[in-house]
Amino acid sequence: MIVDRLIQAIIEKQNPSCVGLDTALEYLPDSLLKGAGTPKRAAEAVFAFNQAVIDAVEDVVPAVKIQIAYYEELGYYGLKAFADTARYAKKKGLFVIADAKRNDIGATASRYARAFLSRTAIGGVKKAAFPADFLTVNGYLGSDGVRSFLDECEGRDRGIFVLVKTSNPSSGELQDLRLADGRTVCEAMGDMVSSWGGRRGKFGYTRVGAVVGATYPEEAKVLRGRMKSVFFLVPGYGAQGGSAETLKSCFDRRGLGAIVNSSRGILCAYRKTGGAFDEAARRAALEMKEDLLSAVGVPHA
Amino acid sequence: MIVDRLIQAIIEKQNPSCVGLDTALEYLPDSLLKGAGTPKRAAEAVFAFNQAVIDAVEDVVPAVKIQIAYYEELGYYGLKAFADTARYAKKKGLFVIADAKRNDIGATASRYARAFLSRTAIGGVKKAAFPADFLTVNGYLGSDGVRSFLDECEGRDRGIFVLVKTSNPSSGELQDLRLADGRTVCEAMGDMVSSWGGRRGKFGYTRVGAVVGATYPEEAKVLRGRMKSVFFLVPGYGAQGGSAETLKSCFDRRGLGAIVNSSRGILCAYRKTGGAFDEAARRAALEMKEDLLSAVGVPHA
Repeated sequence: MIVDRLIQAIIEKQNPSCVGLDTALEYLPDSLLKGAGTPKRAAEAVFAFNQAVIDAVEDVVPAVKIQIAYYEELGYYGLKAFADTARYAKKKGLFVIADAKRNDIGATASRYARAFLSRTAIGGVKKAAFPADFLTVNGYLGSDGVRSFLDECEGRDRGIFVLVKTSNPSSGELQDLRLADGRTVCEAMGDMVSSWGGRRGKFGYTRVGAVVGATYPEEAKVLRGRMKSVFFLVPGYGAQGGSAETLKSCFDRRGLGAIVNSSRGILCAYRKTGGAFDEAARRAALEMKEDLLSAVGVPHA
Repeated sequence: MIVDRLIQAIIEKQNPSCVGLDTALEYLPDSLLKGAGTPKRAAEAVFAFNQAVIDAVEDVVPAVKIQIAYYEELGYYGLKAFADTARYAKKKGLFVIADAKRNDIGATASRYARAFLSRTAIGGVKKAAFPADFLTVNGYLGSDGVRSFLDECEGRDRGIFVLVKTSNPSSGELQDLRLADGRTVCEAMGDMVSSWGGRRGKFGYTRVGAVVGATYPEEAKVLRGRMKSVFFLVPGYGAQGGSAETLKSCFDRRGLGAIVNSSRGILCAYRKTGGAFDEAARRAALEMKEDLLSAVGVPHA
C-alpha cells in the first residue's frame, strides 16, 4: 500500500522531507536561462534543471512535490515539462506528489483523477497524462467531489492529500471560523478527511492524507490528535517561516505521520552559497534532513 | 469594465447563458473520433469539435465556459487544445470563462493568475498561456490566496468567479455547516467574496463573481440577497437537474446578475435529436435561451 511504501522510504532514507520542484523560470541559473527564449525552450530548460536537482537529491529524499502552477504559466510546453519531470522522478525511484489542489463536481473530478492518478484511454492505448503517486485536492465540494480521487486511490494504489489547514497568512479567514458545534471549519474538514481514509496500512495511516501547514503549530497539534489515521503533507518550512520546532506537532510519537516540503530553500540555495545549483540543492536537502532529524526522531528500520 | 461588457453582451443577445465546452473525447461523433488515435490527434479532434460548436453558437451566446479537467486528461496536447479553443472563442468575440477552480498560497496563486488572466514573459516576449476573460477560483485559502487573481482582475480588466455554493449533491457537507455566528460556511465565503469585489460597474456588479449552483434555489435566494454586487456563474442547469424555475433566484429584479451554464445538454444534443452535432448544439443553445427567457426577463438594450 502506497502510504506504507512512502513511510518505508522515509525510514530507509532517515528523511521525512521532500523537495518541492516549484521551478519558476527565474530560479534557473544563467547557463540554463540563456537558451530559454521560447516557451518550448523555456520548458526544456526547466526540465533540465529539474533533472539535475533530482539526480542530486535522489538518494537523500524519498519524494518530490511538483507544483503545477509554475508549469502552467509556461503554457502547454510547461505541462510537458511537468509530465517529463514526474516520469523522470518515478524512474529514479522517487515518489511523486502532484501539487495541483484539484477540485470539482464528481463527473469532472473523475477527469482530474484520471489525469493525475490513472491513465486515459486514447485509440485503445492507456497512458498516464501526468503520472503521480499522490495528488493534492481541495475538499470544499464535499465527498462526491472527492469520490473519484478515492476510487483511483483504491483501484490503483495512489494517495491524495486534502487541504485542511494551509500554511498561508490568511488561511484562518475561513479555516479557523468556529462552527456552532464547537469545531473549526478546518477541524470539520479534517473529520471528513478522516472518514474518507478507508483501510489503514501497517503504520496505521490511510491513503487519504491532509495538507497541514508548518506555520500553525497549535492547530497542527489539535489536528494531529484528531486525525490519527491521516498522514500529513506539511508545507511552509523555510521560506514561509516554518521551522523544525514548529512542525514537530505534525508527527506522531514514533516520529512518523508526516512529510515536510521545502521548495525555494532547495532550488535557490545556490544563490546564497554560490557554486553549482545542483550541488547546492543537495547540500540544502541534507541540511534540511539534519534539521528535521534534530527535532523529530524518525525510527530506524 | 469586463462585467459591464459581459452584461451588455447578455442584453444584446438576450441570453444569460453560456455553452460549457466540457468536451470529453467520448462526446465526439464517430466522424471526428476515427482519426483520434493518439493524444495529439485526439486533442486536435477535440479542438475541431469545439470550433464547430463555437461557429454554431457564436451569435446565440455571449460566452463559453471551458472546463479544463477534460483537457488535462488528454495530457499536454489536451492543454494545447484548451488554449487553442480559448483563442478561437475570443477571436469570435465570445467571452471565455476558464473553469479551473485554481487555488493556492499567494506566491503560487500568482503563477495561476498569470497563466489564465495575464501573460508570461519568456525571452522578452509576453504571451498568454491560457487566455481567458474569467477564471473560476476556490477561496478555501482566504484573501491572500485570492489577492493575485484580484490584482490581475484590476490591472488587466479580468474577472473571477469564486466557489460559494456548488451544484453537486454533497456540496452541503462543508458549505452548509452552521457557524457560531449564525451564518453558514457558504454565506461566510460569500461575504468574503463581496468584500473582494472593489469598484462596481454601471450595472452594479464587480469583477469578483461567485459560483452558485442552479440545484439549490433556496440557498441561491439567500445568497442573492446577501451578495448584491456579486455576479453569479450558475452551473447545474440541465444534466445536473437545475431548471429555469429553480435558478430564477440567482437573478436580480431586472433579470440581470447571473449567467447560466449548460455543457452536456448542448455538446451531446445530437445524440438525442440526430443530425449534425453542431446544428444540434445550436438548436439546444436556442432552446436553453428560450427556456431561460420564459423564467427570467432580461431587459432590452
